[in-house]
Amino acid sequence: MSMYPSLEDMQTTELIKAQVDAIRSTQQHNAMPSYPAQDYGAPSAPVLTLSRNGGSATYSNAMAYPSLRDFMGMELTEEMIRLNMPEYGAVAVSQPNSIVQHNNAGVGVIAPVSGTNSAVVKSMVTHGVRRAVVRKDAAGKVGLRVRAMNTGVFACLVMDGTPAAKAGIRFGDQILQIDGQDMAGLSVEKVHKIFKGKNPGDSFELAVRDRPFERSVCLVRDSSGCIGFQFRHGEIINIVKDSSAARNGLLTQHNLLEINGKNVIGLKDKEISKVIQATPGSALNVTIMPSFLYGHMVKQMDGSLFGKMDHLSPEF
Amino acid sequence: MSMYPSLEDMQTTELIKAQVDAIRSTQQHNAMPSYPAQDYGAPSAPVLTLSRNGGSATYSNAMAYPSLRDFMGMELTEEMIRLNMPEYGAVAVSQPNSIVQHNNAGVGVIAPVSGTNSAVVKSMVTHGVRRAVVRKDAAGKVGLRVRAMNTGVFACLVMDGTPAAKAGIRFGDQILQIDGQDMAGLSVEKVHKIFKGKNPGDSFELAVRDRPFERSVCLVRDSSGCIGFQFRHGEIINIVKDSSAARNGLLTQHNLLEINGKNVIGLKDKEISKVIQATPGSALNVTIMPSFLYGHMVKQMDGSLFGKMDHLSPEF
Repeated sequence: MSMYPSLEDMQTTELIKAQVDAIRSTQQHNAMPSYPAQDYGAPSAPVLTLSRNGGSATYSNAMAYPSLRDFMGMELTEEMIRLNMPEYGAVAVSQPNSIVQHNNAGVGVIAPVSGTNSAVVKSMVTHGVRRAVVRKDAAGKVGLRVRAMNTGVFACLVMDGTPAAKAGIRFGDQILQIDGQDMAGLSVEKVHKIFKGKNPGDSFELAVRDRPFERSVCLVRDSSGCIGFQFRHGEIINIVKDSSAARNGLLTQHNLLEINGKNVIGLKDKEISKVIQATPGSALNVTIMPSFLYGHMVKQMDGSLFGKMDHLSPEF
Repeated sequence: MSMYPSLEDMQTTELIKAQVDAIRSTQQHNAMPSYPAQDYGAPSAPVLTLSRNGGSATYSNAMAYPSLRDFMGMELTEEMIRLNMPEYGAVAVSQPNSIVQHNNAGVGVIAPVSGTNSAVVKSMVTHGVRRAVVRKDAAGKVGLRVRAMNTGVFACLVMDGTPAAKAGIRFGDQILQIDGQDMAGLSVEKVHKIFKGKNPGDSFELAVRDRPFERSVCLVRDSSGCIGFQFRHGEIINIVKDSSAARNGLLTQHNLLEINGKNVIGLKDKEISKVIQATPGSALNVTIMPSFLYGHMVKQMDGSLFGKMDHLSPEF
């Protein structure tokens, strides 16, 4: 589910609602069966379908608008869509602010902006609670350093390839409990001592709250591929006028933490730009944290440690 | 959906899963039909039911544990539950971390800690985007003051009973657009000028992001009714050891903004305590904001304005 939808997604959803309403009123006018209205605006039945057979256009449902074929003698077949626009052929993940596209007869005409992008869904900050089991490796390493802040204990370093990274712990995760013991108010030294007290091969169970200080904003590229902000040392310093960043309310004085789930903490600005450019799809999920809090999290951290950080997108 | 579930909810869900698994293995052992496993751990069919008829205990399904009647000759009928514990008889809102309780034969034995509390669901911070239409009243008032922060425009004062309050704008909401015009980077004066430029009776449409700096933590009362934190001037200053606040990772240096959706900004500490005590149910959703950011939001705000704030829980 998309908890931080983009403004573009909301607008698309409204367009689809308007189209569905138009089709429904047409259907009711023609005394055709109408479909029950759904809260999330997703058509529960194929509403506007394109022909499956290359030759003959078959309209399986009432249509509000004429098809391309009516005007120009051309049409989009499912094969053509699959070849050229695979994102519209795929079954979309169900999201409150996007449209479920799967119908057997074809695809809807208006597509969600970010709904089909699984990386966007994966990089959502949920703020939920989960369990993680970490098993100390043979070398006796956990690969996790914490920082205490506001009586909470937070993961500030997850080393690449270590048990902590494999357990899916991320920068900023709040460690609520270790083996049932509350972490609230504990010092960094005490928590590290708990880790050190385990023998190689020992497992322990963490209760983790997903990144309380972070949130993600979904941005959509414009025709030139821009999403609309400038950053320096990983901190957002400018928002471009009339860009997706401006529309969606991205904020300055925030640090970039993830781009579509890929950790960019401690990367050079050039490398972050490369990550943004290399990310496929039109929608990007940018995870940010107020710079004030970010500064607390990384202060006194040795610069060389950033390179050893888990920079992959963890698979949950 | 519950996006910020409590640790207690997670533990309850695990208990239910274990119970359902136990029942399933019993059923399989007895060659009874098994139900398909569901991701969210909710039993799709009535698993453990209590008798509907006061007199005779009828067990409609396999039971992992004996009923109260087996031990003490007493049992809970649906009528008794409806009279005394209406929250367990109601149909729960579907939540990823709680249990859907509706089944016709009765109710499950293990209940979610907060899942049935509609106030908790209503007071969730979604960080999503929505539209709000505000119509200037006859006196030419909008009832909304904003503050600019990090190139964003935020609602810092929603006056009680005004059009802004009726439109469901809350403290901390980010105003993304007014009538399609991006607000990013605009000064407070410019935004207030837009409001002033409207005539009484004029409508304008806001695109709003739900409270980006806020988040809510669901806490559960202990047997003495405590949730486990101390506050001074609305700021959380201490977390009680082994309390629900400690378990769920509530943080100090955060300001209290809402208790189960009721705005407590600017209230005296005694009044906030009263709100907490008067809130029904065992689960409380506490909405907080880092004090650092809260200070920015309310600075230069006249103390007398707090009293005129919309302190009701808005109905969406």
